[in-house]
Amino acid sequence: MAAIQVRIGVIGHGTVGAAFVRLVKQQASAIAARSGVQLVIARVAVRNIDAHKNSLAADVLTTDAEFVVNDPTVDLVVEVMGGIDQARGLILKALSNGKPVVTANKALIATHGAELFAAADNAGIDLLFEAAVCGGIPLIRPLRESLRGEPIRRVLGIVNGTTNYILTKMSEDGASYEDALASAQQLGYAESDPTADVEGLDAAAKISIIASIAFGCNVVAGDVYSEGITKITAADIAIAKRLGYAVKLLGVTEFDKASGAVSVRVHPAIVSMQHPLASVREAFNAVVVDGEASGSLMFYGRGAGGDPTASSILGDVIDASINLNKGAHATLGVLSAPKLQPMSDTSCEYLLPLEVADKPGVLHAVTGVFARHNVSIRAAEQDGIGHGARLVFLTHNAGEAAMQACISELKKLDVVTHVGGLLRVIAD
Amino acid sequence: MAAIQVRIGVIGHGTVGAAFVRLVKQQASAIAARSGVQLVIARVAVRNIDAHKNSLAADVLTTDAEFVVNDPTVDLVVEVMGGIDQARGLILKALSNGKPVVTANKALIATHGAELFAAADNAGIDLLFEAAVCGGIPLIRPLRESLRGEPIRRVLGIVNGTTNYILTKMSEDGASYEDALASAQQLGYAESDPTADVEGLDAAAKISIIASIAFGCNVVAGDVYSEGITKITAADIAIAKRLGYAVKLLGVTEFDKASGAVSVRVHPAIVSMQHPLASVREAFNAVVVDGEASGSLMFYGRGAGGDPTASSILGDVIDASINLNKGAHATLGVLSAPKLQPMSDTSCEYLLPLEVADKPGVLHAVTGVFARHNVSIRAAEQDGIGHGARLVFLTHNAGEAAMQACISELKKLDVVTHVGGLLRVIAD
Repeated sequence: MAAIQVRIGVIGHGTVGAAFVRLVKQQASAIAARSGVQLVIARVAVRNIDAHKNSLAADVLTTDAEFVVNDPTVDLVVEVMGGIDQARGLILKALSNGKPVVTANKALIATHGAELFAAADNAGIDLLFEAAVCGGIPLIRPLRESLRGEPIRRVLGIVNGTTNYILTKMSEDGASYEDALASAQQLGYAESDPTADVEGLDAAAKISIIASIAFGCNVVAGDVYSEGITKITAADIAIAKRLGYAVKLLGVTEFDKASGAVSVRVHPAIVSMQHPLASVREAFNAVVVDGEASGSLMFYGRGAGGDPTASSILGDVIDASINLNKGAHATLGVLSAPKLQPMSDTSCEYLLPLEVADKPGVLHAVTGVFARHNVSIRAAEQDGIGHGARLVFLTHNAGEAAMQACISELKKLDVVTHVGGLLRVIAD
Repeated sequence: MAAIQVRIGVIGHGTVGAAFVRLVKQQASAIAARSGVQLVIARVAVRNIDAHKNSLAADVLTTDAEFVVNDPTVDLVVEVMGGIDQARGLILKALSNGKPVVTANKALIATHGAELFAAADNAGIDLLFEAAVCGGIPLIRPLRESLRGEPIRRVLGIVNGTTNYILTKMSEDGASYEDALASAQQLGYAESDPTADVEGLDAAAKISIIASIAFGCNVVAGDVYSEGITKITAADIAIAKRLGYAVKLLGVTEFDKASGAVSVRVHPAIVSMQHPLASVREAFNAVVVDGEASGSLMFYGRGAGGDPTASSILGDVIDASINLNKGAHATLGVLSAPKLQPMSDTSCEYLLPLEVADKPGVLHAVTGVFARHNVSIRAAEQDGIGHGARLVFLTHNAGEAAMQACISELKKLDVVTHVGGLLRVIAD
């Protein structure tokens, strides 16, 4: 078959944009042979022409992103500039001009997803965003297409590579949080201001997008309860390991059939060593989808980086190109308003490390607090540490509200010198 | 939106067929709300009406599969009867009648895939087969769509749950092959005649389908070199573990850029304990796709069973229904004739266990054979066993032809009492 030419306008030429342009050039003839689509990089909008003139032709380069989304010779737009407001405006413009859009912009989709999906549906063209969640891992397409009929119960994901790298170093090498973070920064996995990663904000944006697709409702980043990993110590991880668990920062979204409520949260959690997430190491990402019929599925790979992200964008670009020429497009349907489950209504088993004074009566005082809040203890361990002692409690299933009340009261006890990072146990 | 009714004709009502019919009934209204497609089970062809009359309405049941594929009130056909010749005829008939087909028939796709794909393309409708490879795992769709532009180097898969269960029991419990097989049979993971699983034939059919899609060429089951797990002992697995490896039966397909040749094979292999396939336990399946841009991706889940397989079929049915109403269809394009790499041209590192007489000069005699065939030894270990000794050799990278010649000569040595199962090392 003769290949149909599709001219791509790329907005942004940073790590991901440049990797995408390279990949298209390298793969264009193979793609034309297999898919019948001849991809051409028609325009690339950059901030500074001089910085890119060695890698891109002069007639391709522009500093005017508006020009790219309005250019009638551009068939399809790839948005890899990042940021929210300007990107939103450009994408809406491209869609209203009849150009399908492929974006890697997680923050944008996690904030204005529903508006953008509706604009694409109205225009009858594609807005695809595989690259916005977990970089190179094909996850959004399987969720929105392969699992469209699957009754999904829960999605659990290691969706932030930086924190998984830090936790891996702390677990395998016994590194402190500070040293592991420094090592992540040295390798380029963490930014100099690591807040968005280590406080779980990046993960929150991703799990909100996943929840929206898994449960067909409009969850935004701001709906997600988030706790980061800054309170987790190497000692906590070592104790969890001894009890047969791995510590992971997880994005979790669950559907409660009885109430119809959706819980969406990010927090440190522990999974059994035999759970498939336990062996996901270093900066890799992995997402487990628990379906009623499918059972547990896991999607694993590189969640960031120029080449993996470009690979996801390219898959979407080919799909959107084929759809454009067929007059077809993918749709998520109408996303309903979610009934969000407040964090205080969730329940699970908990692992709580405490540092306490090493004197008679301490265990009695501490366990009294658990008892008053009806939090039942499944196991307790004690270690000597210098002048004090470390106590670790593993509870039976308990409500979050009760557990938080228990922690507040523990903090007030004279004999408790430090309350460690709370770890929620992921049930199988 | 008003839902469009799609009437499904199901051929076969065994474990998978019955699970699919149940899942459609359970999910139909949710699917209609989210996808705009109202699925109806219109016909189910069975062998014996009496055996199914309690679970299906009389006007749905028929013993005439031809009637189902010719019935003008049937919009789409699901083939879950199995077998090759009759299923092929029925699918071709359904396609020529303009009915999209979803099939779980691995043996059929691995034999007549190219013919059936071409028939679907000619009819301009879908032939989808997610369920034919690794049951409930979304793998075919990500491969054919998300990774359409990705330069794939290699695909490695644990694609047979029975053998992975057996190897897990041998590895974790030290069970013998015979005991582990008996346990698999008791749990219903293995058939009373386990040949197709333990000799790698089931895996060969699956990896041939994967190779066809990954590399866009027509590989059939008969093209695949296969070795099973019957020669592997618990002692071999224990030694591999001591050296930092897990033993897995893998389907492997690789593209050699230099020669343009595709290698497709099934054999016991060892992977580093940190490789994501190493922690895939029991009857789970997992497939690792190594792409140049994407890096390593893994797709993990249940490779068999009624409900997981039905889940994959349902995803395909919804997709084919939407496409049918749009007049669109998915295509693999034209599959080229593959240039197959003969097994003897492959190369890797090898782990070879030998049982030898425990007397002076044995090691000298044995290593002499390796030397004569230019197979260089990276490590050797010795264990006493009763009257003899067990030697284990780990080689440097060597050609398959040289390694096989080496093994033939070792078998002829008086001092070698037994040559164990050859394990090929998977490079990272």
